[in-house]
Formats: sequence, structure tokens, C-alpha cells
Amino acid sequence: MRIGIIGYGNLGRGVECAIRQNPDMELVGVFTRRDPESVRILTEGVKVFRTEEAVKMKDEIDIAIICAGSATDLPEMTPYFAESLSVIDSFDNHQSIPVHFENVNKAAEKGGNIAIISVGWDPGLFSLNRVMGNALLPEGYDYTFWGKGVSQGHSNAVKEIEGVMDCRQYTIPIETAINAVRAGKNPELKAGEKHRRECFVVVEEGVDFERIKREIVTMPQYFADYDTTVHFISKEELLKNHSGMAHGGNVIRTGKTGWNGENSQMIEYKLNLDSNPEFTASVLVSYARAAFRMKQRGITGCKTVFDIAPGDLSPLSPEELRRKML
Amino acid sequence: MRIGIIGYGNLGRGVECAIRQNPDMELVGVFTRRDPESVRILTEGVKVFRTEEAVKMKDEIDIAIICAGSATDLPEMTPYFAESLSVIDSFDNHQSIPVHFENVNKAAEKGGNIAIISVGWDPGLFSLNRVMGNALLPEGYDYTFWGKGVSQGHSNAVKEIEGVMDCRQYTIPIETAINAVRAGKNPELKAGEKHRRECFVVVEEGVDFERIKREIVTMPQYFADYDTTVHFISKEELLKNHSGMAHGGNVIRTGKTGWNGENSQMIEYKLNLDSNPEFTASVLVSYARAAFRMKQRGITGCKTVFDIAPGDLSPLSPEELRRKML
Repeated sequence: MRIGIIGYGNLGRGVECAIRQNPDMELVGVFTRRDPESVRILTEGVKVFRTEEAVKMKDEIDIAIICAGSATDLPEMTPYFAESLSVIDSFDNHQSIPVHFENVNKAAEKGGNIAIISVGWDPGLFSLNRVMGNALLPEGYDYTFWGKGVSQGHSNAVKEIEGVMDCRQYTIPIETAINAVRAGKNPELKAGEKHRRECFVVVEEGVDFERIKREIVTMPQYFADYDTTVHFISKEELLKNHSGMAHGGNVIRTGKTGWNGENSQMIEYKLNLDSNPEFTASVLVSYARAAFRMKQRGITGCKTVFDIAPGDLSPLSPEELRRKML
Repeated sequence: MRIGIIGYGNLGRGVECAIRQNPDMELVGVFTRRDPESVRILTEGVKVFRTEEAVKMKDEIDIAIICAGSATDLPEMTPYFAESLSVIDSFDNHQSIPVHFENVNKAAEKGGNIAIISVGWDPGLFSLNRVMGNALLPEGYDYTFWGKGVSQGHSNAVKEIEGVMDCRQYTIPIETAINAVRAGKNPELKAGEKHRRECFVVVEEGVDFERIKREIVTMPQYFADYDTTVHFISKEELLKNHSGMAHGGNVIRTGKTGWNGENSQMIEYKLNLDSNPEFTASVLVSYARAAFRMKQRGITGCKTVFDIAPGDLSPLSPEELRRKML
């Protein structure tokens, strides 16, 4: 299948790498809002185009993977492209998913295309495991832990403070909480009992460290309810030690079965990722394969990970899957 | 949806318990090869019938869950019932799945029914995670660990030895192997490096303990390649301390991403089960819901967990799932 990448940041580059790992896929072009001359990609022989060219190349692209931000880009871009192309996105603004779904669905149906939105690990694989955990163990408790990993939203919130030049905020799950959950204790955990937060902050010269620290740890919603540690470091140190993109987390479902709920059961799904964008990209590429197959079956409209049969993610045929993997 | 249970052992009873946890389901009858008068079930007001009655009641049963053994029962029963009813089974003889699939598919297509076979956790949820792990991280390694839990096959193998009255064999994953895998070391593990085995054996009076122990630990395939511990215990002790049905395990996929495979990624799916049959039953019941929905869409023939969209397992509507769980 022929894949186009729209948007070429960390995620787009991750998609490019993932396509190379899948021999049934071919990258047909990278589409960027920057000057195409200025963008150097990794794949030899593949061209970089202006974003608007993607629509004109719709007969050469089976699936376009849109690698752009959820805040302002995807709400515009995914419906726009879904009218001409079958598309995948990683829209991750949980609250706005129903609206985004409706907009993309209308566009995809109009164009006779398929679109799969909110693909990645959360939303995405974690959502799948929440749904399956709830379906399998209807009487139980849900827990999602994130990290250790950088939260872009929290990092940006700190950057808004006067005198702050840069920040990396790590969300860190509290191990004793995870262990209590795994032990089947079904604890009721407030936000601050599940995660703690650690900020590495670069500040302007001459600022009041105490004031900035106070503004961080008392910030409502973002930090006030958490155990937050603040480190002031140099710009160089931030670049050297805090440029990694590791992330991960756990989805745990604990539940009771039996006539009187006498047995405890636990399902845990865990990700441990060196590179968050590259893993998200790998998920996008697998769902691009599913979209391609579903489109071939005549399926159109907007879908989410909940609508995709897992076999469609695999390059193997249904017969091979049953023989080798079941 | 109206569910029938065919076969009423530990698994059938588990299905009965799971149905009670799902308000959108109703148990319409239990079907047994025993004298129905002799079978007491848990659900008030529900009748026990002879197995052969199930076919006659096909208009009252939306989905029949067949709770019988994989060795000789399911290869006969599932195709037989699939001609008249939509069915779910937990056929777990991995090697024979392709043949079983063909037989069930033919019968289900003939009857215009849907059948989902090999539902449970392995085959089942573990298979799903193997397929998804491979699709998401094409360049990587697969690991499945089982236990701690009783292996029926190994227990039975020991019971075949002369002088042995009863046995419970536990398969136990080797923690150092799991940890090496989790640490991303991608070890090449032989069977005996992944699991050890522990046997609790009840013997006849006057037997030669050393001879029995030797016959167990040298038994090809079953024990010879493993670190095996043998305990001789009384019948009473076996009943008292080894009647539990706990089980579990882990499916781990480790893989590399990036242009030069520079980043390690790990996906782990873990089950920790107090009751293996009750959990398997919960899985069967969720897939019964999916079968019911797919049948309503006019889908017929034999399916496996690979063909089922996760959203169909949930009692929630697609809109609710997107709003609450994505």
C-alpha cells in the first residue's frame, strides 16, 4: 500500500521509520507546510511536497497519515483531507473526540473514504485495554498510570510563568500506588496519589527562584494537587539530559468473578517506550494497514481503534494468523 | 441477548456467573449430557435440559456457549451445533485450530449462523496481544510466560505413571527470565529457561518413591527439559492445598524502532487470575455479545478473536465508548 505523510516533525519522521519496517508499505511522499526544499527526509528517492499537493496526488496515495498537532491543526486538517483521501490521525484531545469524530465522519462519507482518528497509545492502545478490561470484568476498577515521561501540557504551563525560559516536566507514577493496585487492594486514589511531578526549569538571569517555584507548585489543576519537585538547571543541561522522549504507562483492570464475587482477577497492559513519537508512529502505520483493507472491502466513514479487528493490523493473512498466532 | 450454556462443569458454571454480571444478557437454559434432574444450577428460575434439546430451542437462544473439552468434545460439538445455533467455544488445541475452523465454518455457513472459536486467554487474549505486538513492532521478539498455574496436560501425564493416584502440576515462570526480557535484553530462552515445574503427587501405598520421581523428571517433552521438583503428599493435602484454579501469565513483545533501530520499545500484557475457568468464562461471554451484534449485521461463518472489533465486546454504544473510554 502507498502511504503519504502529511507533516514532518518527530511523529512524521517516526512514521517514515515505521514504513521502512513494513515491506508491504511504500512511502510515496512527505507533505509539509515548510518550504519543501528546506526539508531533508531519510528515505532515498522519495520527494517532499507542499501540503496542498496531497489532494492532487489522491490517486497515488492509498492512505495519508496526518502527523500534526491536536490543538489547532488536526481539527482543521483531518476533515479537510478526509474529503479526498483515506486518512489516519492521532488526535489526542480526549474531550473533543466526539466533535472531531462527527466532522471527520461527514467529510469521509462525502468523499467515500475511510478515516481512523485518535490512533496511538492514549488515546489508542490504552483505550482499547480500558474497553476490553471493562467488558471482560464488568464488576471492577480501572487504573491508568502514565510515565515516567514528559508531559507537553505541563511543560508549557511552566513556560508561561514570568522569568521561565524553558521547562521539561516529567509525570512519574507512584510505585507504591501501582503495587497496591496490582495486589488487588482496589485503592481509591486521588490524582496526586497516582502520580508525582518533576520539573526541570531554565530561568532568566536574576529571577527570584522561590517565587517561580511557588508559582509552579501552587498552580491549580496542573501542580497544586501533586507532590511536585522543581529543579533549576542551565539551558545546556536541559538539552543534554532532558531531550529524551521516553514514556510509557500501565492500564490495569481489577475485577471480581464468581457467584459471590469470590475471585479476584487482574489484567495489566504496560508500555515501556524509549521513544514516544516513534511508538505512536508504529501504531499509526499498523492502523493504516487496517484502513487500507477496510477501504478495499468498501467500508467508509470515520472509525476509531474500537472499530478495528486486530487481525487487520497484521501483514499476515487470516489463515496464517490462525495457524501461527492463535 | 439470550444465552444458552452447553456443558456444565467449571467453565459452564463460570459462564453462568459471568452472565449475571451483564445486565444485557439472560440465561435461557443449561444443557447437559448428564441427567438434567441431577444437575443443580445457581440461577433461579432457569431450567436444565438434555444437550439434544438445544437444537430444538434454537429460536429461543441467540448465542450458545459450548463449555466442553477440546480433546474430543468440541471437535464434534461445535460444528454440530453451529448448523442450528450461533456458538462460542474455547477450543484450545493450538495445532488443530485450522481444521476445527474449517469444520465449524462450513457448518455455520450452512446454517446461516456465526461461530467464534478458540475464545479465552490462550488461545484468545494472549493471541491478540501476540498479533498486535508483532504488527506494532515488526522488528522484535515475542515472549509468552504462563503461570503460576496448574497444567492439566502435565498433571495427567504424571497420573499415567504406575503407582500414581493423583497429581497437580504447576507451571511456574522463571522470574529472572521475565526480568531479563523486561530489561530489553532479548534473551534467547529455551523452554526450560522460561518455566520450571512443580508436581504434587499422591501415590499408592508401598511404591518406590525414587522410581516415580525418576520417571517424572526424565519424561521426554513434559519434564526432561525443565527444572522439576516433585513433592509426595497425601490425598487430603492435595484436596486441601491444591484445589485452587489460579493461573495467569505474560505476553511480552520487545522491539526496535527508529531509522537504525536505535530505540527499544516494550509491550507487556499480564494476567493474574484467581480462577482460570471463571476468567475464561468472562471472555467467552464478552465474545458472545460480539457474536450477537455481528449476527444482527448479517455476518455469518466462523470467526476468531482476530476478527472481532473490540468495541463489539462492550455493552456501551459506539458513541458512549468514544465519549467515555477513548
